[in-house]
Amino acid sequence: MRRLRMGMIGGGPGSFIGPIHRIAAELDREIELVAGAFSSDAGRSKEAGENYRIDPARAYPSLEAMLAAEKTRGDGIDFVAIVSPNFHHLPAARAALAAGLPVISDKPATATLAEARELAECVKTAGLPYALTHTYSGYPLVREARARIAAGELGTIRKVVVEYPQGWLAGQASGKQAEWRVDPAKSGPGGCIGDIGTHAFQLAEFISGVKVTEILADLGAVVPGRPVDDDCTVLLRFENGSRGVLLASQIEVGEMNGLRIRLYGERGGMIWKQEMPNTLTINSIDGRTEVIHAGGSQLGPDAMSRTRTPAGHPEGYLEAFANLYRDFAAVLRGQSAPLLPGIEDALRGMTFIDTAVAASKAGKGWVPLTV
Amino acid sequence: MRRLRMGMIGGGPGSFIGPIHRIAAELDREIELVAGAFSSDAGRSKEAGENYRIDPARAYPSLEAMLAAEKTRGDGIDFVAIVSPNFHHLPAARAALAAGLPVISDKPATATLAEARELAECVKTAGLPYALTHTYSGYPLVREARARIAAGELGTIRKVVVEYPQGWLAGQASGKQAEWRVDPAKSGPGGCIGDIGTHAFQLAEFISGVKVTEILADLGAVVPGRPVDDDCTVLLRFENGSRGVLLASQIEVGEMNGLRIRLYGERGGMIWKQEMPNTLTINSIDGRTEVIHAGGSQLGPDAMSRTRTPAGHPEGYLEAFANLYRDFAAVLRGQSAPLLPGIEDALRGMTFIDTAVAASKAGKGWVPLTV
Amino acid sequence: MRRLRMGMIGGGPGSFIGPIHRIAAELDREIELVAGAFSSDAGRSKEAGENYRIDPARAYPSLEAMLAAEKTRGDGIDFVAIVSPNFHHLPAARAALAAGLPVISDKPATATLAEARELAECVKTAGLPYALTHTYSGYPLVREARARIAAGELGTIRKVVVEYPQGWLAGQASGKQAEWRVDPAKSGPGGCIGDIGTHAFQLAEFISGVKVTEILADLGAVVPGRPVDDDCTVLLRFENGSRGVLLASQIEVGEMNGLRIRLYGERGGMIWKQEMPNTLTINSIDGRTEVIHAGGSQLGPDAMSRTRTPAGHPEGYLEAFANLYRDFAAVLRGQSAPLLPGIEDALRGMTFIDTAVAASKAGKGWVPLTV
Amino acid sequence: MRRLRMGMIGGGPGSFIGPIHRIAAELDREIELVAGAFSSDAGRSKEAGENYRIDPARAYPSLEAMLAAEKTRGDGIDFVAIVSPNFHHLPAARAALAAGLPVISDKPATATLAEARELAECVKTAGLPYALTHTYSGYPLVREARARIAAGELGTIRKVVVEYPQGWLAGQASGKQAEWRVDPAKSGPGGCIGDIGTHAFQLAEFISGVKVTEILADLGAVVPGRPVDDDCTVLLRFENGSRGVLLASQIEVGEMNGLRIRLYGERGGMIWKQEMPNTLTINSIDGRTEVIHAGGSQLGPDAMSRTRTPAGHPEGYLEAFANLYRDFAAVLRGQSAPLLPGIEDALRGMTFIDTAVAASKAGKGWVPLTV
Repeated sequence: MRRLRMGMIGGGPGSFIGPIHRIAAELDREIELVAGAFSSDAGRSKEAGENYRIDPARAYPSLEAMLAAEKTRGDGIDFVAIVSPNFHHLPAARAALAAGLPVISDKPATATLAEARELAECVKTAGLPYALTHTYSGYPLVREARARIAAGELGTIRKVVVEYPQGWLAGQASGKQAEWRVDPAKSGPGGCIGDIGTHAFQLAEFISGVKVTEILADLGAVVPGRPVDDDCTVLLRFENGSRGVLLASQIEVGEMNGLRIRLYGERGGMIWKQEMPNTLTINSIDGRTEVIHAGGSQLGPDAMSRTRTPAGHPEGYLEAFANLYRDFAAVLRGQSAPLLPGIEDALRGMTFIDTAVAASKAGKGWVPLTV
Repeated sequence: MRRLRMGMIGGGPGSFIGPIHRIAAELDREIELVAGAFSSDAGRSKEAGENYRIDPARAYPSLEAMLAAEKTRGDGIDFVAIVSPNFHHLPAARAALAAGLPVISDKPATATLAEARELAECVKTAGLPYALTHTYSGYPLVREARARIAAGELGTIRKVVVEYPQGWLAGQASGKQAEWRVDPAKSGPGGCIGDIGTHAFQLAEFISGVKVTEILADLGAVVPGRPVDDDCTVLLRFENGSRGVLLASQIEVGEMNGLRIRLYGERGGMIWKQEMPNTLTINSIDGRTEVIHAGGSQLGPDAMSRTRTPAGHPEGYLEAFANLYRDFAAVLRGQSAPLLPGIEDALRGMTFIDTAVAASKAGKGWVPLTV
Repeated sequence: MRRLRMGMIGGGPGSFIGPIHRIAAELDREIELVAGAFSSDAGRSKEAGENYRIDPARAYPSLEAMLAAEKTRGDGIDFVAIVSPNFHHLPAARAALAAGLPVISDKPATATLAEARELAECVKTAGLPYALTHTYSGYPLVREARARIAAGELGTIRKVVVEYPQGWLAGQASGKQAEWRVDPAKSGPGGCIGDIGTHAFQLAEFISGVKVTEILADLGAVVPGRPVDDDCTVLLRFENGSRGVLLASQIEVGEMNGLRIRLYGERGGMIWKQEMPNTLTINSIDGRTEVIHAGGSQLGPDAMSRTRTPAGHPEGYLEAFANLYRDFAAVLRGQSAPLLPGIEDALRGMTFIDTAVAASKAGKGWVPLTV
Repeated sequence: MRRLRMGMIGGGPGSFIGPIHRIAAELDREIELVAGAFSSDAGRSKEAGENYRIDPARAYPSLEAMLAAEKTRGDGIDFVAIVSPNFHHLPAARAALAAGLPVISDKPATATLAEARELAECVKTAGLPYALTHTYSGYPLVREARARIAAGELGTIRKVVVEYPQGWLAGQASGKQAEWRVDPAKSGPGGCIGDIGTHAFQLAEFISGVKVTEILADLGAVVPGRPVDDDCTVLLRFENGSRGVLLASQIEVGEMNGLRIRLYGERGGMIWKQEMPNTLTINSIDGRTEVIHAGGSQLGPDAMSRTRTPAGHPEGYLEAFANLYRDFAAVLRGQSAPLLPGIEDALRGMTFIDTAVAASKAGKGWVPLTV
């Protein structure tokens, strides 16, 4: 059972998400970073390779160079992880899949819906695994919430409120992380709605187990002159008639990464907050409030298998992320990982962004969400 | 400086809000409950009078009886407090004002907007004080938040999120408190939007210092067969261009009285939660988070004058309510109480309900909020 | 069922606790403040009477004057409430009891143990009710905790940790509230141990239902030159062999009124914190965590009868205090109020202070606590 | 800059701490697990090697076998990590140091103080690095707290309260983790005091920057028949006269891993809790409360360099642990890591255990803590 070999695309010097993917991939020793096309600048790719402490010969100046060289090695990469900005996701995935390599990609799947559709074709044609790192669905208590709702603990879901407040783009965007996110050429037509709104959307469907069928979107650009949205309100209607609200913002000063979700059914309600991810609060209609602890004895098997420490020893963002890579490794080894987001989530997410941006611009009210 | 004498209208046996008004009115010894028309049933009014320990002769079988009898006493009532269901607010206020008595009333002001307009006429004609008990604006830290925003601490306000989740009407409504609230003949056309949505609306304008000029309302009746809304989403646009969201629900199982508000400006953000009312969190764009404590030395004069205990000795709902009565007593003694909600708030609140209900029913999008 | 008439001793201008007692006594309309010997200075007593809005004729220049005058009135006081500094408690109580009046007193009961023993004699001789306002035992969730432990929910109690951190005396004591507390002539030999340590001690016994039989006390005066203790650690041993720790301090900068208690038995544990008094956390040995809400449906009858608002409408310090006055009113009306602290608590508390101060000074280890 | 090669001693199937060390060591890609003597049972060591996915040939049947074989390889281990039960720490460290290998060891350093002294001699003789994994000192906000106190932000420290409540040994100890911990032959004379009390002790000195010079220990065995302590109270006196309290327990049902510390100086106070490790609360004597966020802009350089994610993306126990390995890697590369616990901490910790156990058994009061 050797470790699987990962090649990274993007993640060069100054990248936030590259090192995160590296840690997450390796945390369980299922996977090892061995190669990368970390930057389109050869010198920067080499520098990144040194930072990651990989074999210098495997820090390539381009994606094409990596795919070509790795193919010739007996110990070549088993898959690629795409961590570059959105506009680069499709070309990278297309090339990797064409080279016979499974793909795990940062979200959103692509910059545009058209690209996502092309990506789906590529995945289908290649017949290879594709995964999308909706990090928050990797948290043990998110999986616990999902499992309990699926088991009927809340009764029929009636209402979902998912919020994702951030404040780091409240001023003029500056720095590597911020700049490409507010440039439609690099991020796609969605700003906040694509960067974090999709996370919230995916989480709402993931935990509730029901799909959104209609939305009413009101996206705004609060910071003067910003060409993409930075503050989003989206009303949701689910296939079972449930009502929902999705709030996402990047101009709420002081908010850090405040993703949180509340779900209500006929018999109970649940609350989970990403910044305090190790507790899940469950209320029942008879007035009881129970707190579930990550790593504790009240967890079901799915969540329990995704914790690495006993209750009271906090796990966090990196461990949640690692749970996606663990799932992905399982898939690569021929096992099943039904909770790992894949190409359907990619299409749904991009459809959500596209529909929300278009409907908001046109001042439409409720519109169907049709993938 | 004698205590002012209060006559209560409504608040009979089983009433939740009657005893609350009594405690709040008397807490600071500015006011004393001395009479009441507690119920339209003479026996029940008498029973209530005994419970309140007032002179049995002053527990009247009707509003008219109270007004007539009290007028003849040297120690007659100085004002009335209206705590009956919504549909009774206008006739009660009209009669009291006509009898020369100032009025303090539970919210919403009336059952319908037309009634509110008539009420405003009555108030104008009488030239007497009228106050509306938007309880939450009485909390010291709510006033602190308002004062700090007015002083520019957050810069220009850009975004307001106000939420008011409750769960107590998630099942079929039963019991005295629930039944009239879901009966349009008694509550008016708004259900949740009138019962708690108006509180949220008033709080948002109160703290932010800016007025709502447009809304997009989506009101739903989640519990099958319910003739009024029980779950509300309302998008807000303020006069200064700020974006806002108002969420109110009475079917979110496990939520108790979770009113909370977040306000964001160019330079900072603030968070206050009614269920933990003694802290106010303030974030600034430079990354600092400060926690302000009720009763603590960081309070401005307005908030400080509205606390009765030192920091760490929690005050709550009754004390916030009492702050409104203290303001009202000040007005009756000829002083000013600019923060006390009055007839303008009554009209704004009823316009908000009326507009939201109509726009939601008609499936309209954004509509102006014109008082 | 007329309101009972209260005469206050102490509570003059600048008093913190006088207005608190007034509000607490009157909150449920069982009691009315009608008279007072608020200060030994006649002018200040008069001023206080005006502030309290009582009949000016009943703001007396001395305790003796009040007792003499009130006795002659048909509507004279039914009892006295003693809110003056510690050294004044015994003379005030002795005189009131001798005049045939029941007494409710702020804590600690007296300045010295010898005085407490004399007080106990006076109470016994008079055969009149005596109550001691250990405020925190009036919180509904404190009573809920007690009831659940008494019912065996935690199994045999094994460990109690009670902490009472404050920080307001971290600097040189100045101001009316601070100065007498650090003057042994006025407060008695105990500083922090008497002012707040006794509250913690009473709470530990009250909730656990077991009595302390041995202590090991380490009292310190952290602020240079302070003649009484301001930082206390006391190890406890209970009659059933349980281990315990009591921490009280008034020099812990930033702590406000952080009384909290944790109790552990064979089958579960409970946590309650005064600054967030409306939740009680209960853990069971099978790994479940339940949160009990004040006003919620999980409360037993004893706690439920001591809440005035529904869950989510926070009650606080004043309402807890009022619960003691409600109990006291019941006693005066001939009913029973077994949870109201009385003369036995007075003796236990003063014995605790006396033993702790003496043992700590002498550098003794474990000493018996013998009342 | 190749990765350093680690050989693990202990950490076989069923081990809690072995996988933790592995993840922590590798998280930053400074270190790689390549070999291990995971169990004294050859088959179990082999099984562990497979679980860790290392070269099967390097899963050795004994420590001696590992040391001998690795010495002969060009890519042999650079150091050993000792994660076996306490009684095995000294022989393992002695052998590794004698073989010229640096050592990083789980705590406590040894089973007995005599062993710790022998260990110190071995370290001195070998002249090689030795580190002790007091995990909690690796948290970024713990280092922030230390740095701020060292910079004088609180003024002179006056009081330290450190608590470490757990509940997992409230019943009869069963299972691999529990059994050796309550067996003095394997754990040493201390139970709870050694297992978690030393962590609390080290943390108190680490953050406060002052050393404990006297203690008064009261250790108990609450669970009937337990041969070691499971509930500990220790009063502390620091070199600068500060007062302190250390509470540690493993019978407090429902407590998970509740290490927390409060430190108070003349001008401020700080609170940090391990179960919510990403916030540090700082109170100042002027009444201000500030909350510092891990990853946020208010961090000093030392803490900031020890975070891997931006504020709001929670890090936890594994990342704190990894910070110790990062420090250790720096030391092995010839850099300095002054905050990494080493042999002095080992001696202080074992002296603390030995002194506390002896003093408590003898019923002594205050005794000096002399290393």
